[in-house]
Amino acid sequence: MVGIARELQRKGENVLVTRLDPEKAREVCAALPELKYIELSRTGTIEQAPIPALGTRPVALVSAGTGDLPVAEECAETMRMLGVGIERIYDVGVSGIHRLLDKRELFERTSVVIVVAGMEGALPSVIGGIVAGPVIAVPTSVGYGVSFGGLTALAGMLSSCATGVVVCNIDNGFGAGFAAARILRARERY
Amino acid sequence: MVGIARELQRKGENVLVTRLDPEKAREVCAALPELKYIELSRTGTIEQAPIPALGTRPVALVSAGTGDLPVAEECAETMRMLGVGIERIYDVGVSGIHRLLDKRELFERTSVVIVVAGMEGALPSVIGGIVAGPVIAVPTSVGYGVSFGGLTALAGMLSSCATGVVVCNIDNGFGAGFAAARILRARERY
Amino acid sequence: MVGIARELQRKGENVLVTRLDPEKAREVCAALPELKYIELSRTGTIEQAPIPALGTRPVALVSAGTGDLPVAEECAETMRMLGVGIERIYDVGVSGIHRLLDKRELFERTSVVIVVAGMEGALPSVIGGIVAGPVIAVPTSVGYGVSFGGLTALAGMLSSCATGVVVCNIDNGFGAGFAAARILRARERY
Amino acid sequence: MVGIARELQRKGENVLVTRLDPEKAREVCAALPELKYIELSRTGTIEQAPIPALGTRPVALVSAGTGDLPVAEECAETMRMLGVGIERIYDVGVSGIHRLLDKRELFERTSVVIVVAGMEGALPSVIGGIVAGPVIAVPTSVGYGVSFGGLTALAGMLSSCATGVVVCNIDNGFGAGFAAARILRARERY
Amino acid sequence: MVGIARELQRKGENVLVTRLDPEKAREVCAALPELKYIELSRTGTIEQAPIPALGTRPVALVSAGTGDLPVAEECAETMRMLGVGIERIYDVGVSGIHRLLDKRELFERTSVVIVVAGMEGALPSVIGGIVAGPVIAVPTSVGYGVSFGGLTALAGMLSSCATGVVVCNIDNGFGAGFAAARILRARERY
Amino acid sequence: MVGIARELQRKGENVLVTRLDPEKAREVCAALPELKYIELSRTGTIEQAPIPALGTRPVALVSAGTGDLPVAEECAETMRMLGVGIERIYDVGVSGIHRLLDKRELFERTSVVIVVAGMEGALPSVIGGIVAGPVIAVPTSVGYGVSFGGLTALAGMLSSCATGVVVCNIDNGFGAGFAAARILRARERY
Amino acid sequence: MVGIARELQRKGENVLVTRLDPEKAREVCAALPELKYIELSRTGTIEQAPIPALGTRPVALVSAGTGDLPVAEECAETMRMLGVGIERIYDVGVSGIHRLLDKRELFERTSVVIVVAGMEGALPSVIGGIVAGPVIAVPTSVGYGVSFGGLTALAGMLSSCATGVVVCNIDNGFGAGFAAARILRARERY
Amino acid sequence: MVGIARELQRKGENVLVTRLDPEKAREVCAALPELKYIELSRTGTIEQAPIPALGTRPVALVSAGTGDLPVAEECAETMRMLGVGIERIYDVGVSGIHRLLDKRELFERTSVVIVVAGMEGALPSVIGGIVAGPVIAVPTSVGYGVSFGGLTALAGMLSSCATGVVVCNIDNGFGAGFAAARILRARERY
Repeated sequence: MVGIARELQRKGENVLVTRLDPEKAREVCAALPELKYIELSRTGTIEQAPIPALGTRPVALVSAGTGDLPVAEECAETMRMLGVGIERIYDVGVSGIHRLLDKRELFERTSVVIVVAGMEGALPSVIGGIVAGPVIAVPTSVGYGVSFGGLTALAGMLSSCATGVVVCNIDNGFGAGFAAARILRARERY
Repeated sequence: MVGIARELQRKGENVLVTRLDPEKAREVCAALPELKYIELSRTGTIEQAPIPALGTRPVALVSAGTGDLPVAEECAETMRMLGVGIERIYDVGVSGIHRLLDKRELFERTSVVIVVAGMEGALPSVIGGIVAGPVIAVPTSVGYGVSFGGLTALAGMLSSCATGVVVCNIDNGFGAGFAAARILRARERY
Repeated sequence: MVGIARELQRKGENVLVTRLDPEKAREVCAALPELKYIELSRTGTIEQAPIPALGTRPVALVSAGTGDLPVAEECAETMRMLGVGIERIYDVGVSGIHRLLDKRELFERTSVVIVVAGMEGALPSVIGGIVAGPVIAVPTSVGYGVSFGGLTALAGMLSSCATGVVVCNIDNGFGAGFAAARILRARERY
Repeated sequence: MVGIARELQRKGENVLVTRLDPEKAREVCAALPELKYIELSRTGTIEQAPIPALGTRPVALVSAGTGDLPVAEECAETMRMLGVGIERIYDVGVSGIHRLLDKRELFERTSVVIVVAGMEGALPSVIGGIVAGPVIAVPTSVGYGVSFGGLTALAGMLSSCATGVVVCNIDNGFGAGFAAARILRARERY
Repeated sequence: MVGIARELQRKGENVLVTRLDPEKAREVCAALPELKYIELSRTGTIEQAPIPALGTRPVALVSAGTGDLPVAEECAETMRMLGVGIERIYDVGVSGIHRLLDKRELFERTSVVIVVAGMEGALPSVIGGIVAGPVIAVPTSVGYGVSFGGLTALAGMLSSCATGVVVCNIDNGFGAGFAAARILRARERY
Repeated sequence: MVGIARELQRKGENVLVTRLDPEKAREVCAALPELKYIELSRTGTIEQAPIPALGTRPVALVSAGTGDLPVAEECAETMRMLGVGIERIYDVGVSGIHRLLDKRELFERTSVVIVVAGMEGALPSVIGGIVAGPVIAVPTSVGYGVSFGGLTALAGMLSSCATGVVVCNIDNGFGAGFAAARILRARERY
Repeated sequence: MVGIARELQRKGENVLVTRLDPEKAREVCAALPELKYIELSRTGTIEQAPIPALGTRPVALVSAGTGDLPVAEECAETMRMLGVGIERIYDVGVSGIHRLLDKRELFERTSVVIVVAGMEGALPSVIGGIVAGPVIAVPTSVGYGVSFGGLTALAGMLSSCATGVVVCNIDNGFGAGFAAARILRARERY
Repeated sequence: MVGIARELQRKGENVLVTRLDPEKAREVCAALPELKYIELSRTGTIEQAPIPALGTRPVALVSAGTGDLPVAEECAETMRMLGVGIERIYDVGVSGIHRLLDKRELFERTSVVIVVAGMEGALPSVIGGIVAGPVIAVPTSVGYGVSFGGLTALAGMLSSCATGVVVCNIDNGFGAGFAAARILRARERY
């Protein structure tokens, strides 16, 4: 990994490393002192080339509980490195539905909504009913017992009664950020 | 089954038969012409003894889609035969959250809330956040693919971010109605 | 269902019914003679209002085997009713990789790529590596044994080594078409 | 977590922290010396406001083996903080059925019965046949092999031949205590 | 199958055919008119050789619900053909524990106890605590939802808190009867 | 545990503790110096009362690989404490079928055969075809990948083509030994 | 399918159709009268071009029970159409180990061994220990309960204690025959 | 293990130990200083007897990501010790399809292709469509979320749309190498 990162660095490209736990990060940072490590998102970045902005409106990044923040922030770092603007809407869960509904206009100002949620993963169903644009759901492994390490949230999101919600792998904040970039990239071309 | 029903009938007791599909119902009704069959709820009843009212306030019976109605109505018939009053709140799903929130005061007038939902089973999480009294969730086998015949709704309800929601087996409207009667029965004794 | 369709019809709106098997279709068509039924896609439509075009470029609709066609065509009918242009690329599987690679320029002329595949569901991984825009994967229940009714394709698509591929429920051609419309709709607004 | 607890503390409210293992507890107690930690229940509490009694009769808290005690005691601490009276009936398993039957009158003096059990989770089926009031079953992750970390007990409780037993997530003593409080709370209002 | 049965018949041996549904039975009986078919147990037998008695005490054959009778009777027919005496104890479930406890002395007069149960499969746990001799548990596919076609009963029986209970495959009354015969056969030799 | 053991010790009874890993054993032995710990079987015993012999012939204890020895020896210690004689037949696997067949006469001199096997768990099928008496199969968690921690061996043993083989929970050497004692105990009474 | 078959026929190529149940076969044969249908193997063939022999030694095709014959014969028809010689060794199961061992020299005269087995799928483990050449295992969906439609046999074969056994999908006789042809084909080239 | 290795060593045979993690390796090497340990493949070998070459052409050993290398190298060490020549084709994934297609002629010079892949396991499907000889697929536990520790890759490979691909257990590089040797061994005999 250090080898790949160094080669990218030598070519003058930016580097994004994900799923880097604190222990491994310490080793990697010793070898690559330029790497900026964030513990919450478990990401490391080297930013040496300018990042052109992708799209004119931000992506809404929604999450329910504090346990979902590592995945949400991995997604945020991914989007930041791809030039995507971010509007964070954190701590809005379905069991406190009014905190979510109060943010309604905010959604209208964004191009894509990414929803990060664990446990029963009900949040994308509610948001998919409010928002007309693309909704990307990311299940997290937050929960215990029959949360099955994120499988219940994943299956709930795929079974969502809100039509046209699309889903990523469990804890895959990186993939969701990249998918948003795919949407914004296409928009620019046409 | 006909034998058991006939014995109850002979003793002057009321009879409730559940999970009776139309075909079997025809045979049973031929042998037991007093049995009143309802196709939607797949229940048959013989009501010959008076049913004393259980509790002073009705139980709210909530369901999301039309596919959930057979289970909701099995629950309703069970409660009717046990003397429980019913307030039906049908066709309120999480992807149309305002239809649900409009019913909010209605919940306050009820003693127990039973929520019948399939697919991702998100409804009890939202209702559990609105209602202070007991909430009984019933997953249904409505859905396809990763709905897994109701397992996703079941696991979602057990993993609910709304605290203190309790859950019944898949499609078990009978059990949920009986559980509500257990709650109301205890209330009467003390 | 007939009731809901009739109400939409009375309001002058278009109607799309999905997951309508031939037997049920016959009954529904008897009650709703205006309904145009397509057996392959198992869809019924009433088209009485004009459908404004959504987006300027078509969506690529890719499928591998003939068994995947019902899901692909459900997706196509959904998109047609939402005003989305369609470029069908059928019968391109990963075990005959050159047939797929020959279509490469075609992908560049489309706004979104929807990939419908059963069995091991490997097609989105290959296409995700070729295409820069949004890729929506739809697993189908085609296969036997450890295809697990589409679960293997679903899990394979969610685990895809191609970054930023998003996924729908098994056999959910309707959801994939709707998700593409969500993307195109957002594009129009900004 | 410390932040949230401190804010509650500052507002003069009581605090209940669950799922706090000994190691984390040591750190938290260093920052929040007022927190009273119990290792068996893995709970920490700050009790500074008076707790009004909820209901006039206690809740029966039943468990089978010593391995189930942590979950039972989490439930007990939750109820204590919510003002619910508790009657502990521990060490009564189905393979020693007479120890259980000897406690029969005790059940009659309680308002709700919570049954905490692992392995095959058969206890709620027996108790549901003895008790007329509400029965809340809590599966625990006690067992090995095909106990599947509590799934067998959970599925057994949901499939119980005793009618109207309701179920919580695996090891969710907190949820069961809260559900009992929901029942008692409703009882007070009417 | 008819071929194998005929060959056994020609050799003067007894024949036992299991898992024979009524439709297939009609065809087989047309070809083998000597076959005595029992619909409840779905077994067919030709008894032309004397069956020596195996053991001096009967095997207790216990079942809980009427749905379990086909499996229990398959077991009974198997034991009858192997010369094993049978003491039927039917309709004793854990949710009506006293009906079971009333049969207690009966168990003492038998050599082996076979317990046939579906749903949560709790019966062997209670019986294993009462009986000192061998207990063979047979899960049945009776139940719905999370009964998982007998898997919950199977896993519950394998996880039983009663020590030394052994288990057969789901609905395998034949295997349980044969296992009892293995035990009695060994007893005779030594 | 120490408390229960001490009470048994005080009453003059023998003590058997199972599933005692080396670390916990050190602590327990410090508190209970009379406990004799065996690391391979992870058992601790206090033998102060005489153990009457159960049955006149030994139980055959068969295992395939060295990885299965801890479970086999847990079974052996259980039987030793119950007075059951043991004939160990170790290191006989189905992929070296002749080593197994060479032991054939040995089986004939035993009353019960216990087969401990992991991976695909094929051994009981072969032995069930050779031996006429009771065969108890114990799956072990030996293996990796689709061995699923013993589930494949368990399911294979329950599906065995050899009739009348009965099965215990994964790694449950204790249960298998106790089941053998149940068989021998019954034999003594009649 | 008829279309594809006709095109192959027109080009003078041979045709092999698999997984053709009797009902569908009747329709297909009406349209394609040259198709030779075999009900046991559920295959249809048109043989108009000569089939060159592949390899000089036959492939051993082993199966255990009569229920496995359809899959074994699908494999046989596949190999026949690919020019592979076949040595059938049927009705040899692990619970009658001597019938299998009697065939030992037969294996030595074959180039590849294909083993078709359901239930616990133990046969390839025994054969893999006897044979030095390639062993291809095919699990079948024969069995009930925890045979899980062939999954137990599949997992058992993949977990086999016999080294270097390779496995195909459940009921995939076609794939196994094709895999044998791949081996023989390579052998010819070098 | 050390005992077995020493005995082989004393007999002058070669030794191959697999699944040896660094910690255990240190202990083993202390006792067996002749053992050559490789950390990447987690294998230890003692090579004291000459290894005759098996086959005239090498086996192609293909892998996609760096995470798959430990399994690929376990396979390589196994083949080296069995005398099989190896042609490594590493770092060719389906999402960069051209890197794979560029290696096409290389495949033609090999006798068997072993494909090691994790995540969605799509690589064998593409290679099976390019190569006419035997293809052995090895799923790895690389991935997260619904990769299910290699189960998704395993199921994908068994469901492959490329005909005649055979599969080994998850992470079973040893078994795949041994299977290749079985194929080459047979080739030599005939």
